[in-house]
Amino acid sequence: MKAEVLSIGTELLLGEILDTNAQYLSRELQNLGFDLYHRVTVGDNVERLTRAFEAALARADLVVSTGGLGPTSDDVTCEALARALGRELVFSEEAWEMVKARLEVRGRSPCDSDRKQALLVSGATFVPNRVGAAPGQVVREGGKTIVLLPGPPREMIPMWEEDVRPLIRRDFPGLRPLFSEDLKLVGIPEALVQETIGDLFQSPDPTVAPYVGLGEVRIRVATRDSDEQRARARIKHVVDTIRSKLGKYIYGSDGDELESVVGELLVRKGLSLAVAESCTGGLVAHRITSVPGASRYFKMGLVAYGPRAKWECLGVRKEDVERDDAVNPEVAISMARGIRAMAAADIGLSTTGFAGPSGGAPGAPVGTIYVGLVWPNGNYVEVQRYPGNRSTVIGLGAQAALALLWRFLARGLEE
Amino acid sequence: MKAEVLSIGTELLLGEILDTNAQYLSRELQNLGFDLYHRVTVGDNVERLTRAFEAALARADLVVSTGGLGPTSDDVTCEALARALGRELVFSEEAWEMVKARLEVRGRSPCDSDRKQALLVSGATFVPNRVGAAPGQVVREGGKTIVLLPGPPREMIPMWEEDVRPLIRRDFPGLRPLFSEDLKLVGIPEALVQETIGDLFQSPDPTVAPYVGLGEVRIRVATRDSDEQRARARIKHVVDTIRSKLGKYIYGSDGDELESVVGELLVRKGLSLAVAESCTGGLVAHRITSVPGASRYFKMGLVAYGPRAKWECLGVRKEDVERDDAVNPEVAISMARGIRAMAAADIGLSTTGFAGPSGGAPGAPVGTIYVGLVWPNGNYVEVQRYPGNRSTVIGLGAQAALALLWRFLARGLEE
Repeated sequence: MKAEVLSIGTELLLGEILDTNAQYLSRELQNLGFDLYHRVTVGDNVERLTRAFEAALARADLVVSTGGLGPTSDDVTCEALARALGRELVFSEEAWEMVKARLEVRGRSPCDSDRKQALLVSGATFVPNRVGAAPGQVVREGGKTIVLLPGPPREMIPMWEEDVRPLIRRDFPGLRPLFSEDLKLVGIPEALVQETIGDLFQSPDPTVAPYVGLGEVRIRVATRDSDEQRARARIKHVVDTIRSKLGKYIYGSDGDELESVVGELLVRKGLSLAVAESCTGGLVAHRITSVPGASRYFKMGLVAYGPRAKWECLGVRKEDVERDDAVNPEVAISMARGIRAMAAADIGLSTTGFAGPSGGAPGAPVGTIYVGLVWPNGNYVEVQRYPGNRSTVIGLGAQAALALLWRFLARGLEE
Repeated sequence: MKAEVLSIGTELLLGEILDTNAQYLSRELQNLGFDLYHRVTVGDNVERLTRAFEAALARADLVVSTGGLGPTSDDVTCEALARALGRELVFSEEAWEMVKARLEVRGRSPCDSDRKQALLVSGATFVPNRVGAAPGQVVREGGKTIVLLPGPPREMIPMWEEDVRPLIRRDFPGLRPLFSEDLKLVGIPEALVQETIGDLFQSPDPTVAPYVGLGEVRIRVATRDSDEQRARARIKHVVDTIRSKLGKYIYGSDGDELESVVGELLVRKGLSLAVAESCTGGLVAHRITSVPGASRYFKMGLVAYGPRAKWECLGVRKEDVERDDAVNPEVAISMARGIRAMAAADIGLSTTGFAGPSGGAPGAPVGTIYVGLVWPNGNYVEVQRYPGNRSTVIGLGAQAALALLWRFLARGLEE
């Protein structure tokens, strides 16, 4: 079964908007089991849009469009589809009630031009919009299905997930949807992933593929099946194999984020945290506090940017900061120890290094970052040298700090 | 003159990659003066790709494609264009030398499949790639121009800017490019912008349009002209009018960022800064230290997340933190005063509030943020109540803190 995505809107062709809908729907359609060979973007022009619908219907069994359903005269998606199918537009009282209800929620009284949003292609089923005013439509023609959805993602995505996707599953019962599980790893270079489970990457089913992110590796295990349980069982088998070989690097799966996983571990262990940052400039604290409820375990963060802040507030020895290399393991450990004491926290975490573009020191070029960790009866420091520009080095440094903390909390630092 | 953008790559249709190239090139082509009516995405399939080139050439004077120029067998862009034009592929020694040089820089020795990247459509001019291996190509046919560029943006964008764009300007001398200037404003609601210069938004040329960002408003003034000087003069006239009415809110233009502008003002005035953050959790410090050279003026940041950090480190009065509302003007001012003293800085800046989703207090619901500012002979506090989720409130709070600091440095807080 073939599908095609049609992105509609002159603002897209002007480059004013990044078309995230096209990516989202492509992935969704692939996941449902459709083949997708074309994606087309057209402006709000009724002739060109009519031809785009005709071309898509000639090629695909399912056409999904986004955009051009609003109340203004340049919104012509509905009219174009009616023309392409040789049908009329009909006013739907049911759709109109819903449009009016949505406008009322926003405190607007409906005006004449709003009635346009209740015009449906003759024979269409309308799809309720619980966020915005314009409803969507599902039209069927000679075994093919056409779906019209509004352009704003916060309207389009819930309509797709709640109404359209289940409906498409019913319209196309023979599909073999894609099921997948993502494993997320830190503290392991991609090459070592390749070396350890490279043979799995050749597996035709389930497929196993690595993706490299900022300071982490994601491994996706995926398979297609008309039966979800059967698919999940096949995936679990491969995931178990990967876990048996790389388990100690896996911090989570699918939507998990390192800062949330670390937060849960701190809560579970009843430990509190304080952070002293130099080169990462507050990014570690920002990531930790972006998690709701972080105040349960996060006590304090200090951005000790200059040398003076390091010795005055954190008790770092002046001679360590004034050494030729300026950033070194002693500074990292003293910073972590200092913030731990200052905040009366169980764990102190620190970063110090050179983010660039200028700076650096003998033995510590730009990109060098030390991460320090101090806990009640021990301490640990590691050094990394990162390539890339300032923002990449800062991002990788913050990720390294969180990864070290995760390793400590999840399995200890011995191995 | 019509242009068309062709995005090539099966990974795009799988939804694995967000197609930022299409947006970038759409904007660039519009800016150059082309009309853009279609944008098409096709996978790495030589038949479908050949038909896509044929369709684009039937509709447009200029076709720009990205992707499918690599060394592997699924990269078939070049072959598809040759088929569409009925031409041969020819091996270019000159291109091959460049491919080999690029591979050497990466420490790779060229292998057989790499030779594919030196195959050009007969008659093509090749475009050097200074980042990756695959060169681009410019092909001319019957008054039309076809440009093939690689997919990775960090390769594509420099090739477009340095080589292709000037060449297109020469190929199409009659174009009327778009020139524009963006003004960036903080501390003014969009409604007040509308009220003050709303009449300008009706102006047909130059056009004036407002865009709302996170805690800031951008006003774009734009016009088309074959002569840049003439265009710039028309833009300046309108910009001057806007400046005369809204000048005190304008912190910069075009690529300026609030944290860089604030940094320049601190350097120019020889002032140093320290920041104490509660609800913004380190984001203010992170934004300030994301600017290269921030160590010249940024002394220290403290993320005083819990109440204890506020009274123990910053000297906030315990009774102010323990008041029913917990966040209040007194806490904000004491935090700014405390961090200023602790860091021996000229200026102390603070944030305290409730980012949500839970929390809040009587008189200070979720979304309430106080920003405090203390300098040698004065202090100031302001309160905002923001809608939105945790990350939006944190983002708006950090923006408000930087905006207040900018206002203080740029023009004082009296008016």
